[in-house]
Amino acid sequence: MRIGGTYYRTIWMDEDPSVIKVIDQRQLPFEFKVVQLESVKDAYDAITDMVVRGAPLIGVTAAYGMYLAAYHSDPENWCEEVNRAGRELISSRPTAVNLQYAVKLMINEVNCAGSREGMIDRLFHLAVRLAEEEVYNSKQIGNYGVSIIRDLYEKSGKAVNILTHCNAGWLACVDYGTATAPMYLAHDEGIPIHVWVDETRPRNQGARLTAYELGEHGVPHTVIVDNAGGHLMQRGEVDIVIVGSDRTTHTGDVVNKIGTYLKALAARDNDIPFYVALPSSTIDFKMKEGKDTDIENRDYSEVTHVVGWDDGKQQAASVRVLPETSKVVNPGFDITPARLVTGLITERGICEASEESIQSLF
Amino acid sequence: MRIGGTYYRTIWMDEDPSVIKVIDQRQLPFEFKVVQLESVKDAYDAITDMVVRGAPLIGVTAAYGMYLAAYHSDPENWCEEVNRAGRELISSRPTAVNLQYAVKLMINEVNCAGSREGMIDRLFHLAVRLAEEEVYNSKQIGNYGVSIIRDLYEKSGKAVNILTHCNAGWLACVDYGTATAPMYLAHDEGIPIHVWVDETRPRNQGARLTAYELGEHGVPHTVIVDNAGGHLMQRGEVDIVIVGSDRTTHTGDVVNKIGTYLKALAARDNDIPFYVALPSSTIDFKMKEGKDTDIENRDYSEVTHVVGWDDGKQQAASVRVLPETSKVVNPGFDITPARLVTGLITERGICEASEESIQSLF
Repeated sequence: MRIGGTYYRTIWMDEDPSVIKVIDQRQLPFEFKVVQLESVKDAYDAITDMVVRGAPLIGVTAAYGMYLAAYHSDPENWCEEVNRAGRELISSRPTAVNLQYAVKLMINEVNCAGSREGMIDRLFHLAVRLAEEEVYNSKQIGNYGVSIIRDLYEKSGKAVNILTHCNAGWLACVDYGTATAPMYLAHDEGIPIHVWVDETRPRNQGARLTAYELGEHGVPHTVIVDNAGGHLMQRGEVDIVIVGSDRTTHTGDVVNKIGTYLKALAARDNDIPFYVALPSSTIDFKMKEGKDTDIENRDYSEVTHVVGWDDGKQQAASVRVLPETSKVVNPGFDITPARLVTGLITERGICEASEESIQSLF
Repeated sequence: MRIGGTYYRTIWMDEDPSVIKVIDQRQLPFEFKVVQLESVKDAYDAITDMVVRGAPLIGVTAAYGMYLAAYHSDPENWCEEVNRAGRELISSRPTAVNLQYAVKLMINEVNCAGSREGMIDRLFHLAVRLAEEEVYNSKQIGNYGVSIIRDLYEKSGKAVNILTHCNAGWLACVDYGTATAPMYLAHDEGIPIHVWVDETRPRNQGARLTAYELGEHGVPHTVIVDNAGGHLMQRGEVDIVIVGSDRTTHTGDVVNKIGTYLKALAARDNDIPFYVALPSSTIDFKMKEGKDTDIENRDYSEVTHVVGWDDGKQQAASVRVLPETSKVVNPGFDITPARLVTGLITERGICEASEESIQSLF
């Protein structure tokens, strides 16, 4: 997608095969920086320091990290080095499923009886393939999802107002994103759209990242506080809701950023279609009910403080927003029951949020 | 209610009859300051600078402002001065109904053919009466509301978990508050309660004011982001929702701080009682449907920036949370339809959110 008129992905290689480049997402939207990863340690740090974030992008970064470990390995000791790099990368985010999947695939390509050069070549091509698969999945989600937006436009003849929550955008992926993919494809196709962006407290990924990436690509959008979405739906100013999903049960319950459930309730109360965009790899075939999910209680400082930008000093700053003596809790996700979900948009097609309909995609 | 162990009201007179004191609410919860109002101009400034806020407190402050105008008036020209003061106070917040009501009552007591001393005396007693009426209304709301909390406690034998939105607390009134009054009375009676406080973006009155006043009075509470309430309800951690109301139609629709509607939807979806506490003076007998309300679109900077406290410098600070190029909208209120409201708690008693039931209170 475009940033300042230039097409970017979140991770790429230029001419120099010893270096992988990523967009540093820590100070977005306030500062845009590209960071060079010159070793597996750089890739590890980029993941743990949240230079990169989003499950798909973390997986691809780990894959390129394995490639960097191979490329810079000691010709005498490469096999041990690359295997150790794999173990370290897996430990960088123990709960990140995509990361483990990617690194294990890479480790399987390391044949200690073969040549170092052959390994470097295989790891490079596999990392590229994993990145391309992410892009393909996002683009397919976009292709399926854009048909829904196109239908709404053809019916009303007016710009389609889409509400989204958090950042299920291309910055969390390699390109296009998940929830945003149908929006980008609609925009690029010339369908007039406007996106309501929930700021998404506590970390404000909507205000910081979704607003940024939509704005840089030229998509009309308006940021609102999380409290405002229901009111806009009541006033007829939302035509469709599209959000992402961290995990979807095979019965159609959606585990996504805290607050998603409230928007699903409001959409239902106002007869607005509520769609969830996701790569089918995030469907959990073991978990029957979303309410069985163990919801992560995140760092309290995300609630007690708001991190933003000091316009005067042009640097990041943090302000406390509640009394020092007040307790807080900070659940990271909530569960939107399948009954509130109009449909799931995946790279395999669109289905209903039900066991039978999900099965039909596979 | 208590602050630091001392009982306060939001506005009061000490020994000196020439001075009215108010709590400066601008830097709460970070700085507690008492401000002296020594003239009607001080009262006017306190209202326009938001030293005091909340409809009931603004009305009482204006009433005391009229008293100050009288007390400090020129013995030769007091009648004209006091009437001018009334006109100025009414203009300080043109849409504040309580303020206009209070000032008009005060002006009616100004008899230009009578004595200045008599007028001062009457205005003083009327201001005191208006303040006491606010306290009485709040306390009655508390008395009616506490019965609901007591019932919940007697059924479960466990601490009652109450969720509230924004600040319908004693800081917006003179004492007790509206939504908070049942909580304070329950707490003071020894009923174990715990309050979930929505931070209430964009102005964070929940995190800043409700958390502060509950904490200072010793009421157990936990601050959450506005996105979290639905999840807590799904997990059975909320027993009742109590919010305030800026305006209630005589058919039971509730106009309150943006985001209230989303909590009402979640309460309904989880079979949790949703109560609205309000002085019956805020019931609008002209407006039939809440959706006819013209919703104020507030200052965009409330969304683009978060105002809080710089812990290092110990001073107020503001951070930007979204790209400079992104648009925002900032609706101040939303409408919770009567069908989602379990009951209205007023100083006249508890009723259902319906035309017939509201009428029965009058």
